[in-house]
Amino acid sequence: MHLTQPLHKGRRERPDALACVYAERGRSYAELVSRVARLAGALQRLGLETGDRAGLLGLNSDRYIEGLYAILWAGGVVNPVNTRWASAEMAYSLNDCETRLLLVDDNFLDFLEPLRAKCPALETIVYMGEGEAPTGTVDYETLVAESAPAEDALRSGDDLAAIFYTGGTTGAPKGVMLSHANLYADALGTVAATPRPARAVCLHAAPLFHIGGLGLVFQLMPRLGTHVIMPGFEPAAMLELIERERVQETFLVPTMLRLLLDHEDFGKRDLSSLRYMIYGASPMDAALMDRALERLPGVDFMQAYGMTELSPVVVVLPPENHAAEGRAKLAAAGLPINIAEIRIVDDEDNDVPTGTVGEIAARGPMVMRGYWNKPEQSAEALRGGWMHTGDAGYVDEDGYVYVVDRIKDMIVTGGENVYSAEVEDVILRLPQVAQCAVIGVPDEQWGERVHAVLVLHEGESLSHEDLVAHCRGLIGAYKSPRSSEVRHEMPMSGAGKLLKYKLRDAFWEGRSRRIG
Amino acid sequence: MHLTQPLHKGRRERPDALACVYAERGRSYAELVSRVARLAGALQRLGLETGDRAGLLGLNSDRYIEGLYAILWAGGVVNPVNTRWASAEMAYSLNDCETRLLLVDDNFLDFLEPLRAKCPALETIVYMGEGEAPTGTVDYETLVAESAPAEDALRSGDDLAAIFYTGGTTGAPKGVMLSHANLYADALGTVAATPRPARAVCLHAAPLFHIGGLGLVFQLMPRLGTHVIMPGFEPAAMLELIERERVQETFLVPTMLRLLLDHEDFGKRDLSSLRYMIYGASPMDAALMDRALERLPGVDFMQAYGMTELSPVVVVLPPENHAAEGRAKLAAAGLPINIAEIRIVDDEDNDVPTGTVGEIAARGPMVMRGYWNKPEQSAEALRGGWMHTGDAGYVDEDGYVYVVDRIKDMIVTGGENVYSAEVEDVILRLPQVAQCAVIGVPDEQWGERVHAVLVLHEGESLSHEDLVAHCRGLIGAYKSPRSSEVRHEMPMSGAGKLLKYKLRDAFWEGRSRRIG
Repeated sequence: MHLTQPLHKGRRERPDALACVYAERGRSYAELVSRVARLAGALQRLGLETGDRAGLLGLNSDRYIEGLYAILWAGGVVNPVNTRWASAEMAYSLNDCETRLLLVDDNFLDFLEPLRAKCPALETIVYMGEGEAPTGTVDYETLVAESAPAEDALRSGDDLAAIFYTGGTTGAPKGVMLSHANLYADALGTVAATPRPARAVCLHAAPLFHIGGLGLVFQLMPRLGTHVIMPGFEPAAMLELIERERVQETFLVPTMLRLLLDHEDFGKRDLSSLRYMIYGASPMDAALMDRALERLPGVDFMQAYGMTELSPVVVVLPPENHAAEGRAKLAAAGLPINIAEIRIVDDEDNDVPTGTVGEIAARGPMVMRGYWNKPEQSAEALRGGWMHTGDAGYVDEDGYVYVVDRIKDMIVTGGENVYSAEVEDVILRLPQVAQCAVIGVPDEQWGERVHAVLVLHEGESLSHEDLVAHCRGLIGAYKSPRSSEVRHEMPMSGAGKLLKYKLRDAFWEGRSRRIG
Repeated sequence: MHLTQPLHKGRRERPDALACVYAERGRSYAELVSRVARLAGALQRLGLETGDRAGLLGLNSDRYIEGLYAILWAGGVVNPVNTRWASAEMAYSLNDCETRLLLVDDNFLDFLEPLRAKCPALETIVYMGEGEAPTGTVDYETLVAESAPAEDALRSGDDLAAIFYTGGTTGAPKGVMLSHANLYADALGTVAATPRPARAVCLHAAPLFHIGGLGLVFQLMPRLGTHVIMPGFEPAAMLELIERERVQETFLVPTMLRLLLDHEDFGKRDLSSLRYMIYGASPMDAALMDRALERLPGVDFMQAYGMTELSPVVVVLPPENHAAEGRAKLAAAGLPINIAEIRIVDDEDNDVPTGTVGEIAARGPMVMRGYWNKPEQSAEALRGGWMHTGDAGYVDEDGYVYVVDRIKDMIVTGGENVYSAEVEDVILRLPQVAQCAVIGVPDEQWGERVHAVLVLHEGESLSHEDLVAHCRGLIGAYKSPRSSEVRHEMPMSGAGKLLKYKLRDAFWEGRSRRIG
């Protein structure tokens, strides 16, 4: 199993078909493979040897995908740099896995100075932007134009393909080592669990430095489809691209879906080509799902649950659990995919009974090789041959896996348990509200009180009184927010996950919080 | 990737669901895994060590599937013995790969004497029949009942899982070595190319000693479906089982489909559960396809092309190429599956142009590890990293792969080329005809003449004059059979392939025949 295999297939089976579309550029599979092979030749000339790490720092683009495959083709290991990080964090990840070569686009040129200062091993910068290559960098297009194509190194199986640095809410970031077999097997397993046609047109809107976004590249490439790429998520541009390129499938996070549905262009664009929406990073709330099903009736929604260490998908919630009859399972992450085993374990790694919350652990060909240079943390995470996700969850009597972010996300107020998700669902029914996070904050009287953080639609306003009145009509008074605040935006992770701990931390600094 | 993974999943995710149904016996996943683990423990006690070969000689049964997985669970390598072989051929395969342990059912007890005589290394015979264990054998059920469960050896990746002996029309049979990754990757790739729901009820009617039949076991097990097993194909019994067990999918060869459609019970059974029919070994003729589509309107037909050396599937013809619009491609084998690369090469391994006939070669994770103890033949078959199938074929401008058995199957008569398949299609429209093979036989006047071998439906008759009159109405006179014969049955391979060379050989003995 080598990740470059689809390129050979594409060159042979669909040479003239569109492989990548970016802005006004479109390239066929024949062009893609030719450019990848020549860039790979150039990278080897620049000193990239088998197993060497090479970084990618840029927004989504056709060159990002070419660069990714060129590194693999040359025998290298990809280090996709988190674009939301500060230069110190980037430097940490580049240094940690000794990345000596970095491809960078126009959006991150300002980082070059600090990165060079902090990364003594960083020898070569390839400029993959649209303008003139800055001093001290090598021009991407010149390399492609002037290099002889390399032979595919045909790395495969347990050979390392990528190191992804996890954001890690605490401690130093860890480099997750994924092999060719890890990523290829998971792409296959995910496609089998979320049947989609070969040769589809797919939109990459989620960031490709994150494995959620990149996973879709690996899922589509063997199907020889067309990759439509946008630099980053922007609702108006995404709606326009779906219409223009007749996009059939995409991956997003629920927040992105909400922004799409809320956008004034939504009703003006022809979205009839859209058939498959895979979402991840967080579950879909019922109110949002209702709106999405009503406004996108031709679309199959599927949730994918996993993590970087799992390449990334191990559980999928199929379309039938988003609509009428199967709807009772909407809160679930889904069923384990064909190639994944899931266990729920207690603190001593014993199985817990059905319905009991414990730590979610996974086994299968998608489990990472380990953390770069961290044998102890690797052994700990992979003890007994199982990846311990650190997520709390349970399995119901039908085999559905539930992730209870809720354990951390449960508010204990006056002795009553309040589940944030339930309150959020209710608040999101208010037409003024764009985003909402319900957290527990310290309270002299109640221990914790229910606190709502809101982002409103532009031009809207909402009083705390109106918020409470709305909630009291639908849920118990103790569940209704006792306090609330309106913000311009929410703290989000690079993967588009709402970082609730950042909201909480401001309130809890210096205090200890009881965890459910 | 370890082939036993689905058992762990099944025990965890669907312990109470039916795993295997055979005759009046049904066993849950929990029972299946418990029996497999205990049988594996017994096999280890009987001397089976990691990497040792163990043979399976029997008709299809639940124990055949248990035995298969028990051998893998114990760390062994399965040698599924071809049940259509003479004892000398069986002995050859057992000796060739040093099989010291053999599981045998009631149908092959007569073979034990000659096998023991010819296979000095054969130390242990496990009796997996329904009666009392014969002298000199160990009783399967006793082993299961009295043994402690073994730990799964968790063999995986490049570790050998099975050795299949190919019938080989010439020369000694070759042991095709397939790894866990070979078989698991191909099962995944095939499922992705032939989308079918998880947890389906599947009927195993094709022989499990053949990789075509066994492949379906590997495709269904990770989906945790129900395996309905019949000892061997028999149309009335198959129709009854489909009705009784609400079977949703099955694998068969076109000949079997014809016998089903022709059977008097066909219209009497409720076949409405049937949704997916995968067929292989030979293409579907258009006349048969028409009847099947009309009489089984709810069924998706898919052709799978491959060979033992390819674990086995590399090309799939999807359902849309069996019905109205896509029908033009019905003669094709299909499109390469996601994980398979296909090339057509000339005698010097150069690619030939689109539409040109050459040898079909394949690359991907499903390509065998080689032939057992035949390094030269392995190197020859796998030269350049590609499996050379020995099949002649071409790829059309839409990327569809065609297998032209036709090169060998073309008749040159009076300077005109006649394609057997075309004549066969025409003859099969006659309601009297059950099976038909058109071959070239030596002729003083024409060099070769078109000769038809027919099997008629019971109670039917057909004169040569009527046959010719029918053909002349539909195809050119030179294509119509100049001679014909009626037989009771056709020579068939273990895989259900019509062995035309056996028909031809009788005519061509001592002569040389011009090929293509």
